[in-house]
Amino acid sequence: MSRFLSARYSDIEPYTPGEQPKSTAQLIKLNTNESPFPPSPNVIKALNESEISKLNLYSDPDTKDVVDALSKTLGVSPSQIMMGNGSDEILAFTFQAFCDREHQPCFADITYGFYPVFASIFGLQPEIIPLREDFTICAEDYFNKNKTIFIANPNAPTGLSLSLSDIKNILQHNKDNIVLIDEAYVDFGGETALPLINKYDNLIVCRTFSKSRNLAGARLGFAVSNEQVINDLCKMKFSFNPYNINRLSIIAGREAALDTEYFNFCVEKIIKAREKTVSELKKRGFFILDSKTNFIFARHPDISGENFYNALREKNILVRHFGNERIKDFVRITIGSDEQMDKLIIAADEILKENKK
Amino acid sequence: MSRFLSARYSDIEPYTPGEQPKSTAQLIKLNTNESPFPPSPNVIKALNESEISKLNLYSDPDTKDVVDALSKTLGVSPSQIMMGNGSDEILAFTFQAFCDREHQPCFADITYGFYPVFASIFGLQPEIIPLREDFTICAEDYFNKNKTIFIANPNAPTGLSLSLSDIKNILQHNKDNIVLIDEAYVDFGGETALPLINKYDNLIVCRTFSKSRNLAGARLGFAVSNEQVINDLCKMKFSFNPYNINRLSIIAGREAALDTEYFNFCVEKIIKAREKTVSELKKRGFFILDSKTNFIFARHPDISGENFYNALREKNILVRHFGNERIKDFVRITIGSDEQMDKLIIAADEILKENKK
Repeated sequence: MSRFLSARYSDIEPYTPGEQPKSTAQLIKLNTNESPFPPSPNVIKALNESEISKLNLYSDPDTKDVVDALSKTLGVSPSQIMMGNGSDEILAFTFQAFCDREHQPCFADITYGFYPVFASIFGLQPEIIPLREDFTICAEDYFNKNKTIFIANPNAPTGLSLSLSDIKNILQHNKDNIVLIDEAYVDFGGETALPLINKYDNLIVCRTFSKSRNLAGARLGFAVSNEQVINDLCKMKFSFNPYNINRLSIIAGREAALDTEYFNFCVEKIIKAREKTVSELKKRGFFILDSKTNFIFARHPDISGENFYNALREKNILVRHFGNERIKDFVRITIGSDEQMDKLIIAADEILKENKK
Repeated sequence: MSRFLSARYSDIEPYTPGEQPKSTAQLIKLNTNESPFPPSPNVIKALNESEISKLNLYSDPDTKDVVDALSKTLGVSPSQIMMGNGSDEILAFTFQAFCDREHQPCFADITYGFYPVFASIFGLQPEIIPLREDFTICAEDYFNKNKTIFIANPNAPTGLSLSLSDIKNILQHNKDNIVLIDEAYVDFGGETALPLINKYDNLIVCRTFSKSRNLAGARLGFAVSNEQVINDLCKMKFSFNPYNINRLSIIAGREAALDTEYFNFCVEKIIKAREKTVSELKKRGFFILDSKTNFIFARHPDISGENFYNALREKNILVRHFGNERIKDFVRITIGSDEQMDKLIIAADEILKENKK
């Protein structure tokens, strides 16, 4: 810390992203919930030399091409969508725009680890609501909060999903404050809140191209809400970084949003691989939460989460372990390709053999 | 504005970027200081199908490839560099990290129009220091401020440059506060403050790939400072948007930073075109400030800035006009290719003929 940093940041603890090893040649990377599949062939076709040659020109600050494509695919008006440089930027703008002393943020104890960091960077005092013992969200806990509510659905790193009727109930009991539903993983089996967008003016749905659209490296997220709330978010964007999306990502996003066939193909492959992996791991004594995402959250009675993580690491398989007391027995495993999951199972067998109690 | 937006933003006026018309086929675009030349051939070669196919994987949050390349080119340590999603993001993080009630921001009345917006979004009360009558900066005005100082050098939209000894003086007279020198345009003839980085721990130099590196559409800016200040800026980034640079822009930046030959070629072409344009316009009675940038700031006694802007617009030439009282007689004209500047001169001739007093 330099002697110039504003005193209010002296205690801040930045977010720690999952390890992004420089060379992944030997590694099976199941630690940051990326898709194991390349982007849509249409993305690869569209990012051609002619487009790359235009990188000397600014990108469109209104990101119209990708907004229009999403509008078509999702069936909402373009004025109800704003693009972010990843969904993290959407979350940041939401904390910035809709939280203050009168509307502190409110979220679960076990959820996306970035929420407390956003709260901290914006000088907020979040209310932390514990998940139930079984890691599910109790909807009633979020009623009449008069706070800005952030719910990841499905939740991370648990993978558990909240029903649409629960979300409806939460929206109905928070009419005067924003409820953001973070649907980063919804395409893998969750229930989306998008059909509620025109019914509840307090709802923001936050989505990403990083998981089900195979574009983590393009940095594309978006918010869907009513026009007024989107205008507020745009106010933040145009006061912080108007050209927040680069030219190539706008094109990549447009193509990925329109290629429904490839999207469905990839999502189905991952769901199948997840179900197979869950069934194989359960046979081996793992306890696994009911995942509606492209990852699973698993623990085994014979080995601690940290030891399992380290043992996999030694076998060049990278998963994620969180130190938090309530979940320290678990590891989070991204669902990769069939081949990757087969190798994971073999590795798990070897590790369990060595750790048999 | 929705009923949910935090009250502190009720008066905020977001930044208005220069117009980015959807189709530029018929337009000569001289309004946002882009380079008229495509990116380095090495950029185009490096952004190949194999790299695009990896967009399913996250980018490197440490952006090591482009940082290392810049480190080589600029002769500073990698630990002294941080990349931003455009230099606007670097500026935003600097306002966020180093300004507060005890250290309000401080900048010129006529300078980059985003500074007051940053001040406003972060709830700050900037001190505005008027330029001299001739639009130059008086270094003494910035002495002993105990504020966080932002100076664009060369300045925009004037194009005027401040000497290195003036900057040194300002740094020396502000030992306990940050001085950010915004060098977006420095490569076109300004004096860089980079050689002072290891002498003054209060100096941040902010740069961009948007102008002299022909990559406005890739969104790449960077800060150079001492390691501690860079760590503070990284703290902001990792608390706001850790994966702020996408995969392809990291590669594009790496190649652009290393291709010194092409960089020199483009910069020299633009400086030559600028000198020729200035000389032609002066022959026609224009008053032009002494530009060290890739744009010129010009006015003519026979026509108002707004009318000249509109008349050019009708001839499909887009320049920029600012409403601010002190500079409303001027237009800012980006230096494009020789062909574009020839067309500008022809258009100016026609307009002056129609407006002869």
